[in-house]
Amino acid sequence: MYFDHAGIATDDADALAELFGDLFDTAVVHEEEFDGMTVRFLDLGNGYFELLESHEGGPIATYLERNGPGIHHLALATDDVESALEDAREAGVDLIDEEPRPGAWGHEVAFLHPGSTGGVLIEFVQHG
Amino acid sequence: MYFDHAGIATDDADALAELFGDLFDTAVVHEEEFDGMTVRFLDLGNGYFELLESHEGGPIATYLERNGPGIHHLALATDDVESALEDAREAGVDLIDEEPRPGAWGHEVAFLHPGSTGGVLIEFVQHG
Repeated sequence: MYFDHAGIATDDADALAELFGDLFDTAVVHEEEFDGMTVRFLDLGNGYFELLESHEGGPIATYLERNGPGIHHLALATDDVESALEDAREAGVDLIDEEPRPGAWGHEVAFLHPGSTGGVLIEFVQHG
Repeated sequence: MYFDHAGIATDDADALAELFGDLFDTAVVHEEEFDGMTVRFLDLGNGYFELLESHEGGPIATYLERNGPGIHHLALATDDVESALEDAREAGVDLIDEEPRPGAWGHEVAFLHPGSTGGVLIEFVQHG
């Protein structure tokens, strides 16, 4: 597996995309409405920052209420998310998603429970 | 700039290195004692996860007390950390390190204040 992206919860994705664009010499390469969020991917060449702004409640709104804005999850790319999930299950890791599900940008994704992974919310991503 | 690593605060780096090794098919490629911490880098091919375990207080111990274990910071690689800091200063970002300083693995590093960067603790890294 390799690094795919870091997901960042924000209440102002426009401002953060502009600031990160300036600071890191990067730009938004994909934007969509997904699951009640505006999702923007900033291209770092070898991976992405995924800015997540919630509009209609859901897990990002809950996260912001509890924690404030900041790093939400880390995503690893795999060519077989189902097999990666099976390996995680066998390693005793609690799964948030028992099966892969559609994610943003046409990806297949699955999340592991951070209580099993050192407090880190991990996402497996399979590109389409 | 490009993605360099995600820093992860943990109270059991041995266990987390083993678990992440299994889950992500990765391994520790560098380990050192630095600034009162044991620092381990897991190689993801296009970047690293940096496991930070504190032994003598310091910022990671404080972080763990306040937040519990989890994602601590995101690091971007640059070939000129001094110039990157100057750009950040001009963009109105508060700096934790006004000047580059020695980091783990012989890097030159500088941190930006998360209050200026959407709650995300950002590190600039210049490889030696």
